[in-house]
Amino acid sequence: MNARFYAPDAHAPGDVLALPDDEARHLTRVLRLKAGDAVRVFNGRGGEFEATIDGAGRDGVEVRLGAVREAAREARVALSLAQAVLKGDKMDDVVRDAVMIGVAAIQPVVTTRTEVTCSALKKGSRVGRWHRVAISSAKQCGRAVVPAIREPLTLETLLRVIASERSSGSTLMLVEPGVASRTIALGDLDPAPPPEATLMIGPEGGWTPEEIQAAAGSCRMLTLGGRTIRADAMAAVAISALFARWGEF
Amino acid sequence: MNARFYAPDAHAPGDVLALPDDEARHLTRVLRLKAGDAVRVFNGRGGEFEATIDGAGRDGVEVRLGAVREAAREARVALSLAQAVLKGDKMDDVVRDAVMIGVAAIQPVVTTRTEVTCSALKKGSRVGRWHRVAISSAKQCGRAVVPAIREPLTLETLLRVIASERSSGSTLMLVEPGVASRTIALGDLDPAPPPEATLMIGPEGGWTPEEIQAAAGSCRMLTLGGRTIRADAMAAVAISALFARWGEF
Repeated sequence: MNARFYAPDAHAPGDVLALPDDEARHLTRVLRLKAGDAVRVFNGRGGEFEATIDGAGRDGVEVRLGAVREAAREARVALSLAQAVLKGDKMDDVVRDAVMIGVAAIQPVVTTRTEVTCSALKKGSRVGRWHRVAISSAKQCGRAVVPAIREPLTLETLLRVIASERSSGSTLMLVEPGVASRTIALGDLDPAPPPEATLMIGPEGGWTPEEIQAAAGSCRMLTLGGRTIRADAMAAVAISALFARWGEF
Repeated sequence: MNARFYAPDAHAPGDVLALPDDEARHLTRVLRLKAGDAVRVFNGRGGEFEATIDGAGRDGVEVRLGAVREAAREARVALSLAQAVLKGDKMDDVVRDAVMIGVAAIQPVVTTRTEVTCSALKKGSRVGRWHRVAISSAKQCGRAVVPAIREPLTLETLLRVIASERSSGSTLMLVEPGVASRTIALGDLDPAPPPEATLMIGPEGGWTPEEIQAAAGSCRMLTLGGRTIRADAMAAVAISALFARWGEF
């Protein structure tokens, strides 16, 4: 398959448009493609097109859209990953993997045991960075959708939003066995996929007992087997398990 | 929980034994534990014990085993991961994740598109390295079993072994949609876990058409959704999905 590029302005066959700067650099400097070469362009909202490079130089890259193409199928369940922000670059890996496996959106969460604050994340432009990671992952995995990276929220705020917006059945908080009074296993979930769901995953140190108690009113407490999964691998394992349960594989 | 150490010679409460050198170094230099401190010791074959450090110094560490303890539960299905050797250090990550999620054994495989040979792997002592990665992962995830890392085999040899030893139902070759004539999805697998199974995962460039054809007689061809999963993340996604299907979560 031809190399794929992200262009949010791509709307319809026949359009001629400039690629974003990052994408233009990738096309010219890394892949060394030139005018006349065939590529694919996706707009991040599900639209994918054949395209031809009209011009490629220091000033940027222009592409001309051709026929609509089919991208990788989106999951039937719109699963949001509410992930407590992890240390260092580990959140990048989680974003990359979650996009690849097929989540619809990622909600970074600041919890008691998270080592950064919402304002530090804002200052560090972390959402922009995670958005670039999401674009890069979408390019590689064949999706024409770039999942939204939402503005970080504290767990407290997120729980308020969940309580006001959603039915309790569709929000799952991943917990270790034995830490919550009422937990369910994967097999307790309805195998028919809900249209939307949110999966909440804690930081390296886990949720505090107070956080679990605060969430118990609006979330179901899900456990996944008896082995301890590393915090930065938990999302991939849990999303894969949920997708398996819901018939996505 | 107290720090856990691997000692293959640990057999029964009351035993006094020396930790292997790597483990002794971890105990003294990284965790800075001393005589009298409480630890846990597991033997890699399912045995786990409370233990007390009898002596810790430059010459090594001696521990005295106490009561038998329960380790993380092992999966009911003994799943072997037959993974094509990946580039660089990526195989280390696959070993680490597969042990953590719960495989019973790992069989490194040399395929047409694998960039190393069995003899180069032998020269580079890669099996010993992967064994150390497996120990380290078992320590972290709470398992008292260290999955065997088998000697690397070519796919051709592995398929001969499979054809002679196993029923065809229990060997799954993971393939991309559309590359094999008869594929099954996860939902086509019996939800009752088989006692043993082998999951074969290809290298970065995938299986060749000839390899898929050669395997078709002894393996079922499994596909996992329509998105392209990175080679080094495939094992974690596929093992999680299989464990979900088989009620391990």
